[in-house]
Amino acid sequence: MYRSHNCGELRMDHVGQEVTLSGWVQIGRDLGGMTFVDLRDRYGITQLAFNLDDNADLCMQARKLGREFVITAVGKVRERSSKNPDRPTGNIEIEVTELKVLNAAKTPPFTITEETDGGDDLRMKYRYLDIRRNAVKDNIIFRSKLGLETRKYLTSQDFVEIETPFLIKSTPEGARDFVVPSRLNPGQFYALPQSPQTFKQILMVGGMDKYFQIVKCFRDEDLRADRQPEFTQIDCEMSFVTIEDILNTFEGLTKHLFKYTLDIDLGDFPRMEYDEALKRYGSDKPDLRFDMEFVELNDVAQNAGFSVFDDAELVVGICAEGIADSYSNKDMKKLTEWMQRPQIGAKGLVYVKFQADGSIKSTVGKFFDDDQLRAWGAKFDAKPGDVLFIVSGEAEKSRKQLSELRLEMGRRLGLMKKGDFKPLWVIDFPLLEWDEESERFHAMHHPFTSPKQEEIEKMLNGDHETMKSLKADAYDLVINGAEIGGGSIRIHDRELQSKNFDLLGFTKEEAEEQFGFLLGAFEYGAPPHGGLAFGFDRLCAVMNGQSSIRDFIAFPKNNQGRDMMIDAPSPVDQTQLNELKLELGEIETKEEA
Amino acid sequence: MYRSHNCGELRMDHVGQEVTLSGWVQIGRDLGGMTFVDLRDRYGITQLAFNLDDNADLCMQARKLGREFVITAVGKVRERSSKNPDRPTGNIEIEVTELKVLNAAKTPPFTITEETDGGDDLRMKYRYLDIRRNAVKDNIIFRSKLGLETRKYLTSQDFVEIETPFLIKSTPEGARDFVVPSRLNPGQFYALPQSPQTFKQILMVGGMDKYFQIVKCFRDEDLRADRQPEFTQIDCEMSFVTIEDILNTFEGLTKHLFKYTLDIDLGDFPRMEYDEALKRYGSDKPDLRFDMEFVELNDVAQNAGFSVFDDAELVVGICAEGIADSYSNKDMKKLTEWMQRPQIGAKGLVYVKFQADGSIKSTVGKFFDDDQLRAWGAKFDAKPGDVLFIVSGEAEKSRKQLSELRLEMGRRLGLMKKGDFKPLWVIDFPLLEWDEESERFHAMHHPFTSPKQEEIEKMLNGDHETMKSLKADAYDLVINGAEIGGGSIRIHDRELQSKNFDLLGFTKEEAEEQFGFLLGAFEYGAPPHGGLAFGFDRLCAVMNGQSSIRDFIAFPKNNQGRDMMIDAPSPVDQTQLNELKLELGEIETKEEA
Repeated sequence: MYRSHNCGELRMDHVGQEVTLSGWVQIGRDLGGMTFVDLRDRYGITQLAFNLDDNADLCMQARKLGREFVITAVGKVRERSSKNPDRPTGNIEIEVTELKVLNAAKTPPFTITEETDGGDDLRMKYRYLDIRRNAVKDNIIFRSKLGLETRKYLTSQDFVEIETPFLIKSTPEGARDFVVPSRLNPGQFYALPQSPQTFKQILMVGGMDKYFQIVKCFRDEDLRADRQPEFTQIDCEMSFVTIEDILNTFEGLTKHLFKYTLDIDLGDFPRMEYDEALKRYGSDKPDLRFDMEFVELNDVAQNAGFSVFDDAELVVGICAEGIADSYSNKDMKKLTEWMQRPQIGAKGLVYVKFQADGSIKSTVGKFFDDDQLRAWGAKFDAKPGDVLFIVSGEAEKSRKQLSELRLEMGRRLGLMKKGDFKPLWVIDFPLLEWDEESERFHAMHHPFTSPKQEEIEKMLNGDHETMKSLKADAYDLVINGAEIGGGSIRIHDRELQSKNFDLLGFTKEEAEEQFGFLLGAFEYGAPPHGGLAFGFDRLCAVMNGQSSIRDFIAFPKNNQGRDMMIDAPSPVDQTQLNELKLELGEIETKEEA
Repeated sequence: MYRSHNCGELRMDHVGQEVTLSGWVQIGRDLGGMTFVDLRDRYGITQLAFNLDDNADLCMQARKLGREFVITAVGKVRERSSKNPDRPTGNIEIEVTELKVLNAAKTPPFTITEETDGGDDLRMKYRYLDIRRNAVKDNIIFRSKLGLETRKYLTSQDFVEIETPFLIKSTPEGARDFVVPSRLNPGQFYALPQSPQTFKQILMVGGMDKYFQIVKCFRDEDLRADRQPEFTQIDCEMSFVTIEDILNTFEGLTKHLFKYTLDIDLGDFPRMEYDEALKRYGSDKPDLRFDMEFVELNDVAQNAGFSVFDDAELVVGICAEGIADSYSNKDMKKLTEWMQRPQIGAKGLVYVKFQADGSIKSTVGKFFDDDQLRAWGAKFDAKPGDVLFIVSGEAEKSRKQLSELRLEMGRRLGLMKKGDFKPLWVIDFPLLEWDEESERFHAMHHPFTSPKQEEIEKMLNGDHETMKSLKADAYDLVINGAEIGGGSIRIHDRELQSKNFDLLGFTKEEAEEQFGFLLGAFEYGAPPHGGLAFGFDRLCAVMNGQSSIRDFIAFPKNNQGRDMMIDAPSPVDQTQLNELKLELGEIETKEEA
């Protein structure tokens, strides 16, 4: 027997009991005649005590234990003379009578502590050591719990978890597929799914009514920070539902998850139309933990001779409270430069400072008198001490720029509070996006998304301009400015689906080649249906107030898509390539990035 | 709103209520002035009633509905005049007042009924129609429930569900990997996991203590009947455990699953050593729903001048009860031929018939008198009416042959009762198998399996012959003759692991190249650990008394690894191959099989 208890469970109640514990040596301390060893496992840390006078041999053994040695200790639980109130086991210690080293350990390349001295690359390479750290371990345990609660809730609502295949068919639409050469069908390839989208729709045609799956998906994209080539979705689909049914079901799921993992009651989720979200926050995923709403100033700021404003499609601003006196001219200049970086691309930044003494300072003081500026301030309910930041230009661009500034000011002013959660349904997304460059429409959500019921007629018979204005029954769940998931009511009518493929520039043959089985299925009695997918990795991170998904994934890949621990991908045997009837093309040596 | 209720829930209590139902038209019946339509969804079937006199238009509409049309019906629940006791909703029907066709349907290529007229290929191509059949639908729902109960049980035992990566590293050992070319690392490949074996061991080194995952695995094998290139495992690993801890935990899981999905109490599982299983049943996965144990006859059947027996390493038989008078000479001849088929390869089959009248008939009557044959019978407790079947030759082969016969007789005699479940732990598997042909050892389980504690010394210092006799801490769970899963205590000591790789013919470099990260991890404090994996597809099938796993998989592939519905695998664009720096080799036209 390796243990009678784990390292996190012994309390004063256990004093006097003989116990056996196993775990890792966190740290040893020699205090004259006593040696203390902190023994750690997943459940906690328990102090082992050795007395040189009582058992010199054993104590000397204990002194030789290195960090991360794996040991078993037998002994009696006793009350500690100097208690540690920060540790659940801090009232007791083990008076050790037997000690066995199960495995020695080399000195780890970084410390196994809350805050580690290991850099990212080192932590990835030695992920098994990193996982021993509470910071990572707790995230992984949280993820497990979140998965279980998701399953409990959805099955309680009659959802069936159904595994869809991983070896599917490649479709050139959307992001790049990972492909898998088939040995039994040489020259042919499977693809790994970017999502189970078509399969879940097929399941609805198959009458499964309510489907879900927590499932890995794959996208061969150039990796940006915090993207993974494989990621996990909570994927769902329902039949005979309206948008209302879907939003209520997944609002229920989200509330359940917050309640049963964090003990937080979220309350009802507000809803906002896409157009309104853009108008009020410049973003389709506004962070509602703070207001700082956009106010449009065209009516008061234009036609006053300031050509930058006069020529703009939109003049729009936000009000940052209480910073007028603490933000120096230099700070303002820096902020302007921050807005002018290529990532944001603002031409400039206008500000109006309502100083505590009642005076006003502004970059556009030459063009507007104090009364005019006060009229602006009134639109924001600005008080002395507040600052207006104003951008102008083409509407869409200006909103995006100001949205970035809003988030930045939210961060600086500490308005994005940890532990504060503000969910939001963004609804009524556009159906199609017109791409000026390729002169074609893209699906805003995906090609199976239905226009809103009342738009179907317009879609079937409208002209090109009409198509640009079509709204979809598509929705996103946003929490604290992060897109947690999204979905839509799907088209279940073959004619409407064909029209959509047509608008998206698929020829009949292409549509048939890629989605023929789905279009075929639609002819055998497809029910009205819709669904949604949550990004599971992101949900984990947002619920824990963390910005990176990486430490919620046991074995993440780095930004080159490489698993640093196992060193994958890697070359394969020529035999294997021969069996697959594949040859390697000429491979250029990688340039330095 | 598409529905107020589903098609399976209305009862006498609901009579008088106005309801809205949606679903598929199962069948319509015109009876003079009345038309009845059976409306089906996942939850059941409800009868819709239309009266020609009351509403001629509506009734005519109903008569035009085709099979599998998707409709919504509004109406009042009323008591049926002619009730259907076979259907939960059979006491009521809906007096329809509104009818809406949501989607028409072509006539399905096979009937959507319990027993269908569709062949396998057709059912696979139109899987969405096949799934509408109760037979398939119920299996898929069962699978979902089994998954949830697995998760509930294991998390209640402190297991953490942890997702391991799908894009990993190819290892030439074992079955063939599916590989995935990496675009970001041209010329390099990921592999899809055959199991998360190394990752779960790494998680133990990482201190996760108890891991599980219900996870897809991949094997690029030539497909035999009832094998799938992608399959699902319940995968588990535990730290600081002995074999006893593991068997108890997963016996607990299995009992829980039977209890909470089938309401069956399994009782405690017997255990049997591998050697004993072979000796008593000729198989390491004996079906214990019936006895028909092997009896060895060397002591009574040899040295009597029958050279076939005299020259044999083993003479072994079984006793089939009560068939002496019903099995004719012709039947016996056929059975002998069945045993001589190349799949089994017996040289012949000896029988001894103890006929009801007390007389004895035997193929070896020339060599043995009735007293001798009665002495054989006594060893089996044979009664008049019983028949002994005896094979002889090389021990291992004879046992395998007789095992096949035992199963065949069990089938013929109806001894494999549906609803009867006989679990068994088979333990103490050999560590290594000697392959005469390649003159090397193979791992019986896998290369990380530990020899039994008491064999470690022998393994480190023994000679070649000693290696053949080593027993492992490896175990299989068998239910009704099917291997549900297996596992082992792992080696956690780098030296012992190196020795094992050495025995298995890996050079130091190969071991380092393929498993370096695991060997490396073992140097940083690896705890004693072990685990097991259940075949989830197989478990589903066995629990439902079905022999094929295919209908427990929503979208199975056929024996060529092809998804008939989506037609995958398929060729990919040249652009995609170029991006992957891959060229197709010369592909021979497939020969007709």
